[in-house]
Amino acid sequence: MIRLADWSKIAERITEFIRRFVESAGAQGVIVGISGGVDSVTTAFLCVRALGRDRVLGLIMPEKGVTRDEDIRDAIDVCRKLNIEYRYIEINEIVESFLRNLDKGDMIPVANLKPRIRMTINYYYANLLNYVVAGTGNKSEIACGYFTKWGDGAADFFPIGDLYKTEVFELARFLGVPERIIDKKPSSGLWVGQTDEEELGISYERLDGILKALERGMSSDEIVEKLRFDRREVERVLDLMERSRHKRELPPIIRLRDLLD
Amino acid sequence: MIRLADWSKIAERITEFIRRFVESAGAQGVIVGISGGVDSVTTAFLCVRALGRDRVLGLIMPEKGVTRDEDIRDAIDVCRKLNIEYRYIEINEIVESFLRNLDKGDMIPVANLKPRIRMTINYYYANLLNYVVAGTGNKSEIACGYFTKWGDGAADFFPIGDLYKTEVFELARFLGVPERIIDKKPSSGLWVGQTDEEELGISYERLDGILKALERGMSSDEIVEKLRFDRREVERVLDLMERSRHKRELPPIIRLRDLLD
Repeated sequence: MIRLADWSKIAERITEFIRRFVESAGAQGVIVGISGGVDSVTTAFLCVRALGRDRVLGLIMPEKGVTRDEDIRDAIDVCRKLNIEYRYIEINEIVESFLRNLDKGDMIPVANLKPRIRMTINYYYANLLNYVVAGTGNKSEIACGYFTKWGDGAADFFPIGDLYKTEVFELARFLGVPERIIDKKPSSGLWVGQTDEEELGISYERLDGILKALERGMSSDEIVEKLRFDRREVERVLDLMERSRHKRELPPIIRLRDLLD
Repeated sequence: MIRLADWSKIAERITEFIRRFVESAGAQGVIVGISGGVDSVTTAFLCVRALGRDRVLGLIMPEKGVTRDEDIRDAIDVCRKLNIEYRYIEINEIVESFLRNLDKGDMIPVANLKPRIRMTINYYYANLLNYVVAGTGNKSEIACGYFTKWGDGAADFFPIGDLYKTEVFELARFLGVPERIIDKKPSSGLWVGQTDEEELGISYERLDGILKALERGMSSDEIVEKLRFDRREVERVLDLMERSRHKRELPPIIRLRDLLD
């Protein structure tokens, strides 16, 4: 499964995409919500490469006590290293103000509040500065629906949205993202101790292997027989893809014009 | 411009769409954010018609001091009349918790917080109850981009999304929506004294006339010459449509696979 990709060519294609997108939107720059994870950090590196450090605003929006301390440190460290302006906004008070006003909920509704709060803050600053919001989602999580609808899934454009997670690691290395950020376990940070691979029930290595094979048009039988993946894993991935389709499509609008015009 | 539409047929088509959508999503019911305006009230009436009163939760989310008192009264009144369960949640405290944590902004960034807060609350309850969220946008505002991206524009499906505003009034009348709600000036309620027609700079009657002519494929010259609309108005509508295109499309994802596979 090893192949050589020309990361400088890929980085160039992405930076050109960022520049064109910002220009065509008539915007002055880009907002990047920086969690300290490899996706958002790589996106920030690419935005600075594309636009220069003056046109990128980093938003660090941890939930104190939930977000890992190392993620907060890494996010701040990256903003300093890139020498971009940033805001440090703890969302705890905002989360609490929602919870005080809503019925008591269990883990999932409460967890999903947070990416939507962060999206809302991203757009507040985007409105304030006439910036656009860079999405930080990668191809693996987009394909599996491993994101919050209208939360981290809601942005103006997706610079690394065609790179599988394992490819993001490689691009990050090429761009000079600190090893520490590349090496730590990916986490959406929505509750204490959460890691993506545990929640997904599969390693990114295996997930991406299956997703790439599906993208090449292989059937699940072929993936099991030729590539020797576990059948249950392949079926789990197919199920995640199918159940999350609504997150990758525009919401349906009923058609009525034949009854009206 | 007068034509007779069969509103009972239209209502039936929409209720069938709602039923099928909820079923195919595997959901137990529908969340409707009810502002007290004609769009959300009509959507609530349709959802009750489609699913019965037990499977519709109304969320009334005024901003005290900004939302018109009559809208609050009308929203509560409608929930009682439809005999649906509802929650009354003033969003003031949540808005303030955002503003306390963000740089000072002027009218637009602050106004846009509110629909995104309401979307977040809609989905909190949707997660809690395994419901889907009904969008309440109509065709006129969708076409003009007269909504907040990832705010009121963010929902799971749009039951009245193919009806122009002037048609929503007619359907509302057919469904028995109180006249008072149909007669009051439409307002997004994002700041005190706001009315849609003032903000849009055109009446819904004229806006819909232009939008319908464009949908039928007429050129702006024809619309000016044959239908006797003001050229500046036609150009303004075209400009609104063009500038809001990104709100009606999925955010672009760069394509890179040719460099990778």
